[in-house]
Amino acid sequence: MRRFVTGQAKNLIDHTRRHHHKTLRLLSLASSDSTLVSSPRLFSSSSLMSGSDSSSSSLPVTLDSLNPKVLKCEYAVRGEIVNIAQRLQEDLKTNKDAYPFNEIIYCNIGNPQSLGQQPITFFREVLALCSHTALLDESATHGLFSSDSIDRAWKILDLIPGKATGAYSHSQGIKGLRDAIAAGIEARDGFPADPNDIFMTDGASPGVHMMMQLLISSEKDGILCPIPQYPLYSASIALHGGSLVPYYLDEASGWGLEISELKKQLEDARSKGITVRALAVINPGNPTGQVLAEENQREIVDFCKKEGLVLLADEVYQENVYVPDKKFHSFKKVARSLGYGEKDICLVSFQSISKGYYGECGKRGGYMEVTGFTSDVREQIYKVASVNLCSNISGQILASLVMSPPKPGDDSYDSYIAEKEGILSSLAKRAKTLEEALNKLEGVTCNRAEGAMYLFPCIKLPQKAIAAAESAKTAPDAFYCKRLLNATGIVVVPGSGFRQVPGTWHFRCTILPQEDKIPAIVNRLTEFHKSFMDEFRN
Amino acid sequence: MRRFVTGQAKNLIDHTRRHHHKTLRLLSLASSDSTLVSSPRLFSSSSLMSGSDSSSSSLPVTLDSLNPKVLKCEYAVRGEIVNIAQRLQEDLKTNKDAYPFNEIIYCNIGNPQSLGQQPITFFREVLALCSHTALLDESATHGLFSSDSIDRAWKILDLIPGKATGAYSHSQGIKGLRDAIAAGIEARDGFPADPNDIFMTDGASPGVHMMMQLLISSEKDGILCPIPQYPLYSASIALHGGSLVPYYLDEASGWGLEISELKKQLEDARSKGITVRALAVINPGNPTGQVLAEENQREIVDFCKKEGLVLLADEVYQENVYVPDKKFHSFKKVARSLGYGEKDICLVSFQSISKGYYGECGKRGGYMEVTGFTSDVREQIYKVASVNLCSNISGQILASLVMSPPKPGDDSYDSYIAEKEGILSSLAKRAKTLEEALNKLEGVTCNRAEGAMYLFPCIKLPQKAIAAAESAKTAPDAFYCKRLLNATGIVVVPGSGFRQVPGTWHFRCTILPQEDKIPAIVNRLTEFHKSFMDEFRN
Repeated sequence: MRRFVTGQAKNLIDHTRRHHHKTLRLLSLASSDSTLVSSPRLFSSSSLMSGSDSSSSSLPVTLDSLNPKVLKCEYAVRGEIVNIAQRLQEDLKTNKDAYPFNEIIYCNIGNPQSLGQQPITFFREVLALCSHTALLDESATHGLFSSDSIDRAWKILDLIPGKATGAYSHSQGIKGLRDAIAAGIEARDGFPADPNDIFMTDGASPGVHMMMQLLISSEKDGILCPIPQYPLYSASIALHGGSLVPYYLDEASGWGLEISELKKQLEDARSKGITVRALAVINPGNPTGQVLAEENQREIVDFCKKEGLVLLADEVYQENVYVPDKKFHSFKKVARSLGYGEKDICLVSFQSISKGYYGECGKRGGYMEVTGFTSDVREQIYKVASVNLCSNISGQILASLVMSPPKPGDDSYDSYIAEKEGILSSLAKRAKTLEEALNKLEGVTCNRAEGAMYLFPCIKLPQKAIAAAESAKTAPDAFYCKRLLNATGIVVVPGSGFRQVPGTWHFRCTILPQEDKIPAIVNRLTEFHKSFMDEFRN
Repeated sequence: MRRFVTGQAKNLIDHTRRHHHKTLRLLSLASSDSTLVSSPRLFSSSSLMSGSDSSSSSLPVTLDSLNPKVLKCEYAVRGEIVNIAQRLQEDLKTNKDAYPFNEIIYCNIGNPQSLGQQPITFFREVLALCSHTALLDESATHGLFSSDSIDRAWKILDLIPGKATGAYSHSQGIKGLRDAIAAGIEARDGFPADPNDIFMTDGASPGVHMMMQLLISSEKDGILCPIPQYPLYSASIALHGGSLVPYYLDEASGWGLEISELKKQLEDARSKGITVRALAVINPGNPTGQVLAEENQREIVDFCKKEGLVLLADEVYQENVYVPDKKFHSFKKVARSLGYGEKDICLVSFQSISKGYYGECGKRGGYMEVTGFTSDVREQIYKVASVNLCSNISGQILASLVMSPPKPGDDSYDSYIAEKEGILSSLAKRAKTLEEALNKLEGVTCNRAEGAMYLFPCIKLPQKAIAAAESAKTAPDAFYCKRLLNATGIVVVPGSGFRQVPGTWHFRCTILPQEDKIPAIVNRLTEFHKSFMDEFRN
């Protein structure tokens, strides 16, 4: 255990040596075992107390004996900086005056409700009624719930065999809910969707894992991924032992996706003996926030068709578009409008209830729409889904609701639209304000967030800061982000966690803090950045 | 697609050739594409209509190109027989008179609420209040909910940062809920439990996968598993590319677990160059239903300690014990009472909200308690948990509730106890009735279900039946189970799906149909068995 404490402490101490804020407090936080034991942490107090350590232990499992694929996997969105933030947050409870800030603001993760976004009332009403169905028999319920939420709950229960929301469902999800999702996709795209193509999942992540598991046999199987990318892709490719084949988005053209770059990287990978199995596209982009133009999407579909690649379309931000000149188009719609059907292209679209205007991250719902695979391959996907039995039913219900929300004339419609538009227009405002603030900072350039939930500014770091990061054995952008956290309480993720063009440095910052917090965030960020640049100016 | 239809049809046709029931109807169901298209199925109607087939397609993904580990994986609990049952069920809706039964009774899976078991009211009340927290501000709520469910909901919301049940939680689950679970474990075992040892999961399955992923690097890594076993183990070992090292439970001594057998199999595996990493024990047993004696558990713990094995303790049926002479003891309690602490033994206990008296399968909640691993190894477990962000919050809440149910004096206490004891005593009765009925059948012997939710009778099949199965290219027990389904509508899982001593044949049957259905099930089963034996008597 001491090894861990020492490692974590080193980072904090490295920082305090150079920084003037509250040095003593941080030193004591970092170096005192007793402080660490009394605060929440990842590790067991029993293991702390017994002093178990891989070097001294006779236990059978050591790092060396673990699956090397697990060791290789990285997931920066919940990495070291978040761990430091959690310890600071705990310490703030009892040591309010010890820090130059009074709260930790988590801009590291697309988790809207953790920052005060309220859930959509209609969705939660339906969920409550389906959770405790006895409510539906009580007359008092009519005073507490909208009439369409009561109707909807009855309709949903009628779709579930025996009205049993506590039963495992079909491995792909409850058929009637998949019908609703398919109808929602049809309404969105103007092309048919088949409920039997829907595999409901606990969020989008398990769907991505499932496809990686299916497609990757060894490191000779490659998946084309955007750089920068959401680290779920690099993590799941590492866990399944495949090769991430990078294609670089062009920051100068607003994170443009060039077919020539795809071709170049595909050929390069093939020349190394890698069989490229799939192309992953995140649209709207994460962490990059761009929304692809339809013409660009057509080229991508043609490229996949021509090169025999599965198109893995991460479309979880489909409701998050903030600029009037861009519009979301699903890849399935684009493929079908090009005339490509089931026999022409393998396409998987991932959707999640964690994003959009609803932001129901904690409910872990989502689906993948799987088209263009032969029946024997689909049978294998079904089998893998079956091993985990089914995704959670609350998530399944919510996934059906977001694809079939209240309609004009429904009791909830007006309040639903007000809640939805309130959230989306506020997100658009926040994105704009933060982007403008970032672009005012010395050495920082930031593309606009056309969609999704993030800004991904580029920071030109002074040579002295890069040198300081090197001596602290940390990536320069991680160095910047740790300093930002310790000075302001703002948590962002270093660009190195998403990969980036070598020699460039970025961070990902969500646009999710509530509007009334944005001015303070802009002030703190601006002040910190100025002082950081002053400190390390060449 | 035609290949699939043909395959499925073959089984049905093989059957109808030998069987007198409704031959024409089954033939038409099996061979008519149009019937299949109009009924729910695994496969897309679009792929059906386009006639896509792996042999004719130019699509990039074929069975040959898939990860061979996926192809190797099997999961019989939702295998071929369940698919046939689903088609029969659909066909019954419009063709009631076509079959010698009027409903499908799913005894294939431990899914109590799908068979009419009602959820525990208190748990659902709390869940509804946490789903739609605005209810807590309404005075009418007090007329609809028990006062302790309202109190509990408030307490739970206070444990969640920002009361945000729609936010991702800590990757291990909400700290306050883990506190409640740890307290529940302490109360159960009389030994300390640390909330930082708890990793909350979407049911037990993802926890088992996570540990397999960690421990298995290649087919040279082995996991000792009971035979018969719950196929999650064989499936996850196959998916992660390891070797299942079997140890056989002794049917003659009530599915006894002999240390000599463990030793023999361990040595045998080692002699083949396999590094055995862990021992999986399912207690109470699935599919076997035995409850281990404490003395036996002590031997198992000592064996793991001595041989340097991780003990993977599947304890999801810990609340399901039906006989007065047996009691559940957690392996952690047994290890601690032997004086083994954190430094002595690596132990993972899996728990699920899908089982017990609550049977909340659809909520997908559970946890694993991870003890005895070094901090650097635990950091890797945490990282893998983080890649999927967190388990669903409703499942987390329920997992905390089942470990801290209402106490004497609480408003709900009496009704809670009545519901709980009603379910458990009824399950005990059903287990006994079914076991006695099975033991009366010619050539069938069945150990009692001391715990869990299953009976696993051994059937001595006549040689003629075995020959008939062979010519139908199916395992003899699968042949029996398909015949049972087609004659009675009862769905059970062939023993071959769980593995068994070669040359013996079994099936797994849940004890979950509601009490009023049991007499009819016994009658149908008895009648079928008699006619089957008469047909194939040597």
